[in-house]
Amino acid sequence: MPKKDNISLSVIKRLPRYYRFLGVLKEKGINRISSKELSQKMNITASQIRQDLNCFGGFGQQGYGYNVEDLHQEIGQILGVNDVLSSIVIGAGNLGRAVSLHIMFESKGFNLTGIFDKKEAICGKIIRGIPVRHIDQLEEFCLERLPKVAVLCIPRDAALETAEQLCELGIKGIWNFSHYDFTSHFNGIRVENVHLSDSLMTLSYYLNENNNA
Amino acid sequence: MPKKDNISLSVIKRLPRYYRFLGVLKEKGINRISSKELSQKMNITASQIRQDLNCFGGFGQQGYGYNVEDLHQEIGQILGVNDVLSSIVIGAGNLGRAVSLHIMFESKGFNLTGIFDKKEAICGKIIRGIPVRHIDQLEEFCLERLPKVAVLCIPRDAALETAEQLCELGIKGIWNFSHYDFTSHFNGIRVENVHLSDSLMTLSYYLNENNNA
Repeated sequence: MPKKDNISLSVIKRLPRYYRFLGVLKEKGINRISSKELSQKMNITASQIRQDLNCFGGFGQQGYGYNVEDLHQEIGQILGVNDVLSSIVIGAGNLGRAVSLHIMFESKGFNLTGIFDKKEAICGKIIRGIPVRHIDQLEEFCLERLPKVAVLCIPRDAALETAEQLCELGIKGIWNFSHYDFTSHFNGIRVENVHLSDSLMTLSYYLNENNNA
Repeated sequence: MPKKDNISLSVIKRLPRYYRFLGVLKEKGINRISSKELSQKMNITASQIRQDLNCFGGFGQQGYGYNVEDLHQEIGQILGVNDVLSSIVIGAGNLGRAVSLHIMFESKGFNLTGIFDKKEAICGKIIRGIPVRHIDQLEEFCLERLPKVAVLCIPRDAALETAEQLCELGIKGIWNFSHYDFTSHFNGIRVENVHLSDSLMTLSYYLNENNNA
């Protein structure tokens, strides 16, 4: 597929939204949509949509709009949701357990193969068929099973050291829920940070602002 | 505190990060920090930091840097983490349970008072002391307890109708984990969207890009 280089982060961040919206249209049995209709549904301008999709070679036909199923599939392919990435979760506390279940049931393209924790009391527990292993077994597991993605659900203090170890063990991407701020390129691997508490504080800010208003 | 109007979203989004970094410095017993040092730690330019904090009236003294504890407290106040907002969670599935525990143990400024679900089988279960109530009891609960924040952990299809009901019941802010895209102002209330699957798909994109490279 002809694809531009240096596609901006904001375009890439919109792709999953396109994918979701098109998935909903597809479920509803809608076959074709104009960029205008899509723009109204998504609250993005039609010209923005055309520009975004042109980064990946364009998909529409002038005057005919987009074929929903094709576009959904193409964007899925760009996003890599059709490939399956072997993934592990580090930290099996409340958040780690929830994220593990999320990956098992809601995330196309990711296959959870291992869960690790350092607390002896948690090790051996089974989360929907996957045993929680002690973190000491991480190296052996990675050498054997070659996972590509690690999900960090551990406290801030342990995040950096763990991430460095994961790099050495061949991990290519980190989904980071710890409070440590990784850059999006860390030691040559990709990191996607999810700061849940930051999001909640942003909400708190707005509600506080309303109180002051 | 003298505060500018129309503070940009990007400044507001950085405030929780400042709050977290200053919290770590405070824990380490560091009393004072220059904008230059802070900028190195946070990977933001010193001039950006000064600009950001100037939006809220400025806190530093030329040549003396920032008092860590004061700045942490002031930003906490701006973010409203010192107030306590009564909060409810809608949807007690895997994600709802995890988010409930997150709010109980990790989120300053939010007090979880109720959890609701429509599945009879889940209702009556206790999540760390809070019973899961049937969604039919939502109205009565809100009229009595006046919660201010609702956390949506329900499927996409139910999100809009539920949010409209919550508005009518006096909710002022929504922390949205459903796959429905709310605008940040919805029916006069504030919404903070967290699209976990989008974040994971972004990671997938980058790993896919690497594969193609």
